[in-house]
Amino acid sequence: MSPKITTELLKQLRQVMKNPRYVQEPVQAYIVPSGDAHQSEYIAPCDCRRAFISGFDGSAGTAIVTEQHAAMWTDGRYFLQAAQQMDSNWTLMKMGLKDTPTQEDWLVSVLPEGSKVGVDPFIIPADQWKRMSKALRSAGHDLVPVKENLIGTIWTDCPQRPCKPLITLDLSYTGVSWRDKIVALRSKMAERKVMWFVVTALDEVAWLFNLRGSDVEYNPVFFAYAVIGMNTIRLFIDGDRMMDPAVREHLQLDSTLEPEFKIQLMPYGSILSELQAIGAGLSPKEKVWLSDKASYALTEAIPKAYRYLTPYTPICIAKAVKNAAETEGMRRAHIKDAVALCELFNWLEKEVPKGTVTEIFAADKAEEFRSQQKDFVELSFATISSTGPNGAIIHYKPVPETNRTLSVNEIYLLDSGAQYKDGTTDVTRTMHFGTPSAYEKECFTYVLKGHIAVSAAIFPNGTKGHLLDSFARSALWDCGLDYLHGTGHGVGSFLNVHEGPCGISYKTFADEPLEAGMIVSDEPGYYEDGSFGIRIENVVLVIPAETKYNFKNRGSLTFEPLTLVPIQTKMIDVNLLTEKECNWVNEYHQKCREVVGAELERQGRHEALQWLLRETEPLARVQ
Amino acid sequence: MSPKITTELLKQLRQVMKNPRYVQEPVQAYIVPSGDAHQSEYIAPCDCRRAFISGFDGSAGTAIVTEQHAAMWTDGRYFLQAAQQMDSNWTLMKMGLKDTPTQEDWLVSVLPEGSKVGVDPFIIPADQWKRMSKALRSAGHDLVPVKENLIGTIWTDCPQRPCKPLITLDLSYTGVSWRDKIVALRSKMAERKVMWFVVTALDEVAWLFNLRGSDVEYNPVFFAYAVIGMNTIRLFIDGDRMMDPAVREHLQLDSTLEPEFKIQLMPYGSILSELQAIGAGLSPKEKVWLSDKASYALTEAIPKAYRYLTPYTPICIAKAVKNAAETEGMRRAHIKDAVALCELFNWLEKEVPKGTVTEIFAADKAEEFRSQQKDFVELSFATISSTGPNGAIIHYKPVPETNRTLSVNEIYLLDSGAQYKDGTTDVTRTMHFGTPSAYEKECFTYVLKGHIAVSAAIFPNGTKGHLLDSFARSALWDCGLDYLHGTGHGVGSFLNVHEGPCGISYKTFADEPLEAGMIVSDEPGYYEDGSFGIRIENVVLVIPAETKYNFKNRGSLTFEPLTLVPIQTKMIDVNLLTEKECNWVNEYHQKCREVVGAELERQGRHEALQWLLRETEPLARVQ
Repeated sequence: MSPKITTELLKQLRQVMKNPRYVQEPVQAYIVPSGDAHQSEYIAPCDCRRAFISGFDGSAGTAIVTEQHAAMWTDGRYFLQAAQQMDSNWTLMKMGLKDTPTQEDWLVSVLPEGSKVGVDPFIIPADQWKRMSKALRSAGHDLVPVKENLIGTIWTDCPQRPCKPLITLDLSYTGVSWRDKIVALRSKMAERKVMWFVVTALDEVAWLFNLRGSDVEYNPVFFAYAVIGMNTIRLFIDGDRMMDPAVREHLQLDSTLEPEFKIQLMPYGSILSELQAIGAGLSPKEKVWLSDKASYALTEAIPKAYRYLTPYTPICIAKAVKNAAETEGMRRAHIKDAVALCELFNWLEKEVPKGTVTEIFAADKAEEFRSQQKDFVELSFATISSTGPNGAIIHYKPVPETNRTLSVNEIYLLDSGAQYKDGTTDVTRTMHFGTPSAYEKECFTYVLKGHIAVSAAIFPNGTKGHLLDSFARSALWDCGLDYLHGTGHGVGSFLNVHEGPCGISYKTFADEPLEAGMIVSDEPGYYEDGSFGIRIENVVLVIPAETKYNFKNRGSLTFEPLTLVPIQTKMIDVNLLTEKECNWVNEYHQKCREVVGAELERQGRHEALQWLLRETEPLARVQ
Repeated sequence: MSPKITTELLKQLRQVMKNPRYVQEPVQAYIVPSGDAHQSEYIAPCDCRRAFISGFDGSAGTAIVTEQHAAMWTDGRYFLQAAQQMDSNWTLMKMGLKDTPTQEDWLVSVLPEGSKVGVDPFIIPADQWKRMSKALRSAGHDLVPVKENLIGTIWTDCPQRPCKPLITLDLSYTGVSWRDKIVALRSKMAERKVMWFVVTALDEVAWLFNLRGSDVEYNPVFFAYAVIGMNTIRLFIDGDRMMDPAVREHLQLDSTLEPEFKIQLMPYGSILSELQAIGAGLSPKEKVWLSDKASYALTEAIPKAYRYLTPYTPICIAKAVKNAAETEGMRRAHIKDAVALCELFNWLEKEVPKGTVTEIFAADKAEEFRSQQKDFVELSFATISSTGPNGAIIHYKPVPETNRTLSVNEIYLLDSGAQYKDGTTDVTRTMHFGTPSAYEKECFTYVLKGHIAVSAAIFPNGTKGHLLDSFARSALWDCGLDYLHGTGHGVGSFLNVHEGPCGISYKTFADEPLEAGMIVSDEPGYYEDGSFGIRIENVVLVIPAETKYNFKNRGSLTFEPLTLVPIQTKMIDVNLLTEKECNWVNEYHQKCREVVGAELERQGRHEALQWLLRETEPLARVQ
């Protein structure tokens, strides 16, 4: 992979940073955040401004360009990728390492006195604005909103904002109608005494209205905002997609409805002026609820005294707890996904020794098998198909320049998933198609022990996910090993593969407590730069746990794996497992046999079924 | 224990809350925090205002009195004690439980519109002021400083502020001279570009000057502030104790010194006016460094633009990492402490069956044995000597009304420690002098498994202690059990038994990373209200760990127990231990035998030595 040459682009950006057509006063630094106006993690091509200016296209990263410097902050998943994609104009700031300065500290260290730092107010979340602005102000600088996006001014061939057709989801998928979701939301609003709720996150709009889209690759969302009043519903959305009879019927746009359920359609671009109008007309005590991650521009539209900001919105929290229809859908999706992967791994086992399977070919084949399954929509993220040293690039995506051929001599790591109309999947398996070394098995087994420690953990109701993170690391830590990413993230139900407010990571403290019905991933790993990568990931459902005692009547929780794909026993050093861990693997494989085996049988996929049976033979522990 | 009758006191307080002699405008609520002007955890009798107004005298709690209500916030350690000590005027707010409102939320829910909430600005830490003030303001109320403490106005027989003689510590105890500590501090100040550092915590003043006092029971500190400039040292301290020739010699008060090491003595009460003078004379860029927990009054003395606030001061961080002299002192202190406890437990084993040993008698006996040891100064906290149901009161202190007699039918929990001139101890052992039930053994063994999980944990350099907290709970969680307190706290070196900035608790996120030389406690527990309490506590030293691999060259850490007191094997259900855990207990007991055994021998304490040998017989695991 050769880096993007950015010398000319940076020159142009530095010019517009001083151009009075775009900035009231010259800015000495310009921040290019990762997200879009909805603070999405996955973004449409028209929003990939940070990738455009730097070349680095990982899912997380913030660029800051000053008159002298260009620096990129990203986390451990992307250290290698960012270093490869960026040219020498850029300094890589490795977040999470001790000596890496924060963006604020770095700015203060490089800026001349009394500098102005510009940022697009529609892109920067209000909470980040606040922190950054305060830090800069206390060092004598100013954070200033630059209304016209400066990357936009130099990005001459920027693509159009997508505006694709919508999918309507009926009750069999969602379990709850959009009307009932509005009713529940309004009751939360009444509890907190707010009059308006502004829906800014794309997945929250999609979830609320039981609609899906395809404006953003991998995430079945569409560009829209919504503003819910106690008696009004406004949906800000563009395009003729609202002319689709199925959508009109679903939203009852042409029915005679009680006025409080009548949806008013408005242009996507009118959100700011509408919010400003709402903000201007508020009486005392009429509060407006926004996420504290909503953009600075939208947040500022509401006068400070009237804002009610929370880190997680009531939609985010309701969305995280899956109902019976969603849980059953997720189960179905994971069984289909397992069928596709059994087919893939059976195929790989035969083909890899021939030396003709590349990372891209394997990824395409995985997609092909998935697309044969019922209700398949698209992938849920770019497939990470990586062999040998590429496996150590935590969020690697094979491209022609890096496309390595799978072999019987290297570890293969496949992290992939799909969107089905009934659920979202995300699974990582690490395999060897020849004979793994003792060291590779040792590392794999530590990672497996960590995976099991989380998956089998029993913990009190109300426990936050971050308190489970160390369980995943303990076996690695014992040997001086570790991995530089969190252990798990929330997973949407035919929605974003990463969603809040729960997760399992040492990095957060403000996650919401886990509760039955939440769905997260469990994905510890181990990576050796230049050599190999190991990760074992299941999507797991939080369920009540039966325990011998019940302290303070709090009740306990544990996890049920939704992912049912064999974990390669060839990679396991059985002697490093405890009896309990060994039993866990055997019971897990027994369940894969029963559930996925039955589906393979039903679909007449006999060869893959044989593969499944071979791969799920019980482990025998040497006593 | 009968509760304190507070009806009349509350009436008086509510009167002064409206009395223009004390308040500019009537206050509708008055906050009585736990601490003193130094935000100390342990306070002098003259500062026990919250206990005076409510009756509740635990170490942590905040009282708020409004015209209608009186409410007390405290944590899980004190739920039972507070309920017993307070009369029905008071509502107990159980912190950490889901439905308990924060102080701010509660105030907002009970106050009439536009209320004023008063607090003593010398007592409330600046960070709490800020949070509380913001929350109240956003609900239309005001937090106002009330200069004269309102409890003081009604507390007619309030004791005098103590002013006891000082102890000087030479290099053999401290390892570093006060001059070198000042040099190191000034170099930290230069790094951060601050001109002044204000020392407000009592243990930080004591540590900086290598002095100790006895103004506060259990904590060898003295009432003082210090202000360190780049060229000046000001010590704010009262009394004729500075006339002591040993102190004058130690501080070189009468020597010809370079001016930057000349200590200027000032009256304790002049700190505010001196800080105001410093604040008024600052030139641009001259910052003043304070803890963000310093009082609101002192913080406000420095204009906002000149303040540099951090959660942990450089003294706090330096103090936490013990040097070789301090570590060796701590080792010696723990060996002496173990000798005293072997004597005690041997004595208890003989005396308890006679039915004559009460909780108070046992506590006194523990103090007697400790006081026989070299360099003993005082206890490091009020001894928790509790049997049967009293053991479930987590921070119980026996008083005549509750004083239960130890018996062969109940579990006995002793949490105690001492201040020696060479170190501070804190140890909890839970014993049975008859035959424990299977259930008691089961619970004890889960607690022991948690204790070992932390003590034997290996973790990367730079790990924060809160990431280890769940290890202590895992065995309890598996059976639906838990405990409602943190797992460990930092321990001072002949200083406060609780000190920052490190610890092991799910409640914090902002603790500083653990590093070699830090000392913390490891004290999981299990408590059944009305029945029994179990806790196993060692003080442990953070040391480098040898590991098979060394990821990213980070290095690993683990703990070495400094406490060397047998863990009662009679209470252990060996079949619940893994082989590794069993080996840990046996190795620990072997070390107790060797190290404490030698000292018992040296001191000619043969009967206690025999007890030690009996109690440290290796466990045999049934395979």
